[in-house]
Amino acid sequence: MDLSPEWVVGFVDGEGCFHVSLHAHPEMTAGYQVIPEFVVVQHIRDVQVLYALKRFFRCGVVRCNHEDRWAFRVRKLDGLTQICAFFEQHHLKTKKLTDFQKFRSILRLMSQKRHLAREGLVEIGEIALSMNTTNRPVLEKIVRSLRPG
Amino acid sequence: MDLSPEWVVGFVDGEGCFHVSLHAHPEMTAGYQVIPEFVVVQHIRDVQVLYALKRFFRCGVVRCNHEDRWAFRVRKLDGLTQICAFFEQHHLKTKKLTDFQKFRSILRLMSQKRHLAREGLVEIGEIALSMNTTNRPVLEKIVRSLRPG
Repeated sequence: MDLSPEWVVGFVDGEGCFHVSLHAHPEMTAGYQVIPEFVVVQHIRDVQVLYALKRFFRCGVVRCNHEDRWAFRVRKLDGLTQICAFFEQHHLKTKKLTDFQKFRSILRLMSQKRHLAREGLVEIGEIALSMNTTNRPVLEKIVRSLRPG
Repeated sequence: MDLSPEWVVGFVDGEGCFHVSLHAHPEMTAGYQVIPEFVVVQHIRDVQVLYALKRFFRCGVVRCNHEDRWAFRVRKLDGLTQICAFFEQHHLKTKKLTDFQKFRSILRLMSQKRHLAREGLVEIGEIALSMNTTNRPVLEKIVRSLRPG
């Protein structure tokens, strides 16, 4: 299955997700690890489309997400950099564009190592909170705990 | 907002729905009306994309579906014929292709007036039951009631 760039943009406008979470990690200076990820979830009947996306972007993994739901997932920084380069060239048409722009700004802060200090981590957490997020209460609690005062 | 054909295919692979239902209608010979429809539902924040689809296909309506969910919906036969012509030329990549093919076969049966007799209505109902459907129990009950014997 060959995918065209425009098809990929349309499909990601519908089904893609730019997501950033914070996870407790005692070895990190500020106590938390930032995990940005790009995910597309499909029913197992369409797992071939997920493998086609993996070939298209030349990164990521295809794994079972939950029961009959499978996911194409990119977490590695070099893969995410490629994903960003693609969507900078091929613009999303839905409001997912805003999530993508916030996601990209978080990756930039990370490339400046800002996530290694508490202040940068708060900044990243606040951007993540303004995006579509699956686990808002947990993220809110972490960001609150990191804020000075 | 201008949409390209490939973007539309990708977006419909993610978000589109080909749907056929039967509704009781005392004036129809066999007692039921067949309602085929093509629908794309979005959160109101992306209603502009729905209007862009309406302009792209030159048919259909954009209406509130439920609360903050809006829909681009095509029900008229000439609009659905245009939709089918488009997807015959630009192939869907997910298993939604199968739903589209079944949808098209129902439209063909309707153009042959087969839905006006009980036998054709059963045939259409059975195809509709093999597709993604939102109201399977109701459709099953109707098809069962129409089957001979």
